[in-house]
Amino acid sequence: MPLIQRLCIIGVGLIGGSLVRALREKGEVGEVVGVGRGVANLEMAVELGVIDRYTHDPCEGVEGADLVFLSTPVCSIVDMTARIAPHLAPGAIVTDGGSVKEGIVAPSEVLMPEGRHFVGGHPIAGTEKSGVEASFATLYQGRRCIITPTEKTDPAALEKVKRMWEIAGSEVVLMDVIKHDRVLAAVSHLPHMVAYALVNAVAGYDRFDESILKYSAGGFRDFTRIASSDPVMWRDIALMNREAVLEMMDYFARYFADLRALVEKGDGAGLEKFFADSKRSRDEIL
Amino acid sequence: MPLIQRLCIIGVGLIGGSLVRALREKGEVGEVVGVGRGVANLEMAVELGVIDRYTHDPCEGVEGADLVFLSTPVCSIVDMTARIAPHLAPGAIVTDGGSVKEGIVAPSEVLMPEGRHFVGGHPIAGTEKSGVEASFATLYQGRRCIITPTEKTDPAALEKVKRMWEIAGSEVVLMDVIKHDRVLAAVSHLPHMVAYALVNAVAGYDRFDESILKYSAGGFRDFTRIASSDPVMWRDIALMNREAVLEMMDYFARYFADLRALVEKGDGAGLEKFFADSKRSRDEIL
Repeated sequence: MPLIQRLCIIGVGLIGGSLVRALREKGEVGEVVGVGRGVANLEMAVELGVIDRYTHDPCEGVEGADLVFLSTPVCSIVDMTARIAPHLAPGAIVTDGGSVKEGIVAPSEVLMPEGRHFVGGHPIAGTEKSGVEASFATLYQGRRCIITPTEKTDPAALEKVKRMWEIAGSEVVLMDVIKHDRVLAAVSHLPHMVAYALVNAVAGYDRFDESILKYSAGGFRDFTRIASSDPVMWRDIALMNREAVLEMMDYFARYFADLRALVEKGDGAGLEKFFADSKRSRDEIL
Repeated sequence: MPLIQRLCIIGVGLIGGSLVRALREKGEVGEVVGVGRGVANLEMAVELGVIDRYTHDPCEGVEGADLVFLSTPVCSIVDMTARIAPHLAPGAIVTDGGSVKEGIVAPSEVLMPEGRHFVGGHPIAGTEKSGVEASFATLYQGRRCIITPTEKTDPAALEKVKRMWEIAGSEVVLMDVIKHDRVLAAVSHLPHMVAYALVNAVAGYDRFDESILKYSAGGFRDFTRIASSDPVMWRDIALMNREAVLEMMDYFARYFADLRALVEKGDGAGLEKFFADSKRSRDEIL
């Protein structure tokens, strides 16, 4: 018997599509129901064999599903949970893939009717591409998936979500929501804020009568690639993870101000130490 | 007759080695003399056919050379120019590859004896690797090379240096030293300062009893690759281009503070615009 009898995917794209492909390869999912708005995308998902059938109505989509995976924008996950909650089958588990957890997990937990369970999750994987046609079975292979249980989390539901991601190839890490949001703010959200500000600063520099951006070479382009990310998605993340993002921005700003002081003083030994410390940390994660 | 009869390369590594390889392929250089300290590296350069002979004494190395290329650390270029100046052949041209120009060009020009010429240059190219064994003839193909003439620059000397880089495959751009140092501060030096500060900030975050750096995924690693750059080289650049680096750091800090204010206010429309502006600028240089 597969781990999941009927899986409902709300938001059928790269993340959900890749999860289904991995589960199907291992024979660990029965029927897959897709929920979304765009007909073309849903038809494509059927054609690709990712989903078996689809509906535009999430309440209908979750009927009889033992596991529901929410892969909609982070700002919409709690609203979606509220909509589907009354329609969940007894014992159903709802989990998500949102990159912010504090604002999602607790509000979603309290929305669960008796005998239905919410488990927050965040697979740390993705590519520059999006959409179900970009999905592939090995997206999660060897990548971390953070699951954020709370005191209220049902142990059997946690175990099933954990198994699902392990079957998909992930290394599952359990973490509390606060730590998750700080960690992600540091290693993902802060770098995006820095990259967006850097590109705007260089593009806005007006000392010369031409944009100096055109002189950027490979290093600048590589460094600022993440500034090409979807503005709406990052607006939502900045709004949802506001407190942690602010904390990390302030943390960064202090280090940046320290470095500025070293440059201003012309402190060669201090600069070399600052750069060497950074290089050592960076080389450790290579 | 080749463009350069006798070329002297002071500092035989990736930059000088690649230049020589490109010139040799086009038959535009006669004899090549290498100057350096490490015997193993110089022997390797001879074996690879990059240089014909070598010496540890720069004053001896420049004898009879019609073109001298300085490829030593930025902080040492003016000192080196001072050492070799009295030994330059009549009509000799000295040029460099340093990534800072204001602190190099004017002091080097005044060191030139009558009938010897200094022309500042900066090929915008490089790889993660260094050393003469990493050099290759196409390093400069399609890459920009900035040459920074002044009122004092000899037109024939400028033309010869320009031709040399064009033969190596570069697109030559003429720029004044002030603009060069601002442009490089913006598109290269500032991103390095930001990356070094970012890695140190994340590595130094101590809210949890483990380093959160280990949770960094591909995005963070790509974004911070330049924080693995040589600390001594970047110390020298920060010291040499201090004023421009400070100006750019302050420029960035203002944009970063603006973004922080948008996050703090929870200004969704403002955040989306900030990110979309950045994405538009970034996508234009793709």
